[in-house]
Amino acid sequence: MGASLALALKKYKLTKTITGFGRNEKNLKQAKSKGMIDEYRLDIKDACKDADLIVLATPVGYFKPIAKQIVSYLKAPSIVIDIGSVKGQLVYELEGIMPEGIYYIGCHPIAGSEKSGIKEASADLFKQGKCIITPTEISNKNALLKIKKLWQKIRMKVETMTPLKHDKILANTSHFTHILAFTIVNTIDNPDYLKYAGNGFKDTTRIAMSSPEIWADISLFNKENILQCINKFEINLKQIKANILKNNKTKLSEQFLKAQKLRGKIK
Amino acid sequence: MGASLALALKKYKLTKTITGFGRNEKNLKQAKSKGMIDEYRLDIKDACKDADLIVLATPVGYFKPIAKQIVSYLKAPSIVIDIGSVKGQLVYELEGIMPEGIYYIGCHPIAGSEKSGIKEASADLFKQGKCIITPTEISNKNALLKIKKLWQKIRMKVETMTPLKHDKILANTSHFTHILAFTIVNTIDNPDYLKYAGNGFKDTTRIAMSSPEIWADISLFNKENILQCINKFEINLKQIKANILKNNKTKLSEQFLKAQKLRGKIK
Repeated sequence: MGASLALALKKYKLTKTITGFGRNEKNLKQAKSKGMIDEYRLDIKDACKDADLIVLATPVGYFKPIAKQIVSYLKAPSIVIDIGSVKGQLVYELEGIMPEGIYYIGCHPIAGSEKSGIKEASADLFKQGKCIITPTEISNKNALLKIKKLWQKIRMKVETMTPLKHDKILANTSHFTHILAFTIVNTIDNPDYLKYAGNGFKDTTRIAMSSPEIWADISLFNKENILQCINKFEINLKQIKANILKNNKTKLSEQFLKAQKLRGKIK
Repeated sequence: MGASLALALKKYKLTKTITGFGRNEKNLKQAKSKGMIDEYRLDIKDACKDADLIVLATPVGYFKPIAKQIVSYLKAPSIVIDIGSVKGQLVYELEGIMPEGIYYIGCHPIAGSEKSGIKEASADLFKQGKCIITPTEISNKNALLKIKKLWQKIRMKVETMTPLKHDKILANTSHFTHILAFTIVNTIDNPDYLKYAGNGFKDTTRIAMSSPEIWADISLFNKENILQCINKFEINLKQIKANILKNNKTKLSEQFLKAQKLRGKIK
């Protein structure tokens, strides 16, 4: 996602210089040779000391440690954003870490796929997608406006909402669904059965190819909302099971019809 | 699926005349005007009395009643196949209904999508897909060979296995997955959240747009296998929940990694 954003910033000419930082020099070299970044640094302090905009694009578990590591080196005024899938409390914590003149804005571009790594990066990843921005009462208005425009310029539809509302919604529409997809795959009785998987199984479990680390982090950072979804899901599944056991075709059809109608609402 | 098969039989010139039978004359008229079928009958006896091949393409719950209704009108030798997603015991029961000289072969073309209705029919639906044929000890060898060739000619890869093995596998790779997709959609707390659904949610729940009646039937006809999968799934989900509650990122990552690797095996 970070590499795709770098490509999009290049494509729409929104930056002068992009400096990469990461754990793996080989990846950084490759990103540079592909023109995704202009330069890279192996020392995080060097990477961000002259930056006007810092983008946190790691698994969400690293945002706070990284923020703490870099804040004293940032020049004011500058803007820090993250592009993680969890907001909630984390937004307030990141905001709290920022010193005077450094403005943090939480962003969640709903884009991307199960693939990760710079090979899969694309400037067009964000097109038509929604980007949710989660300002707080104390977010800097100018910084917020700048960041909104940035996402709009790379062709995203921007919506703002509170960090807590974001996490409630995303637990429903993404986080809990990922956990179920992983669990569906782990339930398969015999790996040999997978050669009979049709498009239904493939599509339903595509997101089970997502990064385990990213999703372990998300599961823990949006824990309460996700557990609420799982609990409700377990109750619904128990009802389905009961209707199967009772051979209640009418009730089963009703439950499936309700889902069919609701799913049909998504454009 | 029935209409797609009719189109494929036409495309590869495998039949002389296709006669349609169904509950809805409007659909039959439309199928005829589109050249999917050559003629249609509103009386099931008329529809099948001269047929060399009868294809049962209704929800699986109708196969036995229909078979019982038609067998005395069929001319020997002729072949009856079904294209349902459940085999198991049903195959033996259908076989038992057939009189002397009428040969039943159970077939499951793994193809199709969540869409149904003749508008969605396509001769190319079957291309590259697997067709599972489930002969029994007493299946007629000639009929079996003919039916194998039929699916191969419309570009499917044919595999044979026992009806019981078929149902075990399909419960894992399709039936239980459909039930979970319906249940995921019904778990969404607020329909308004769906406008934030990304590609992950869309793909995972695409099959929740499948026909409620077809899937209520399948759920009941492959009940034991499906319940086994659901039970195993519930246990796996409980473990995930426990690891979320305990903030056990290592264990969560392991569980997700296991799924990621397994899912990656599917071509």
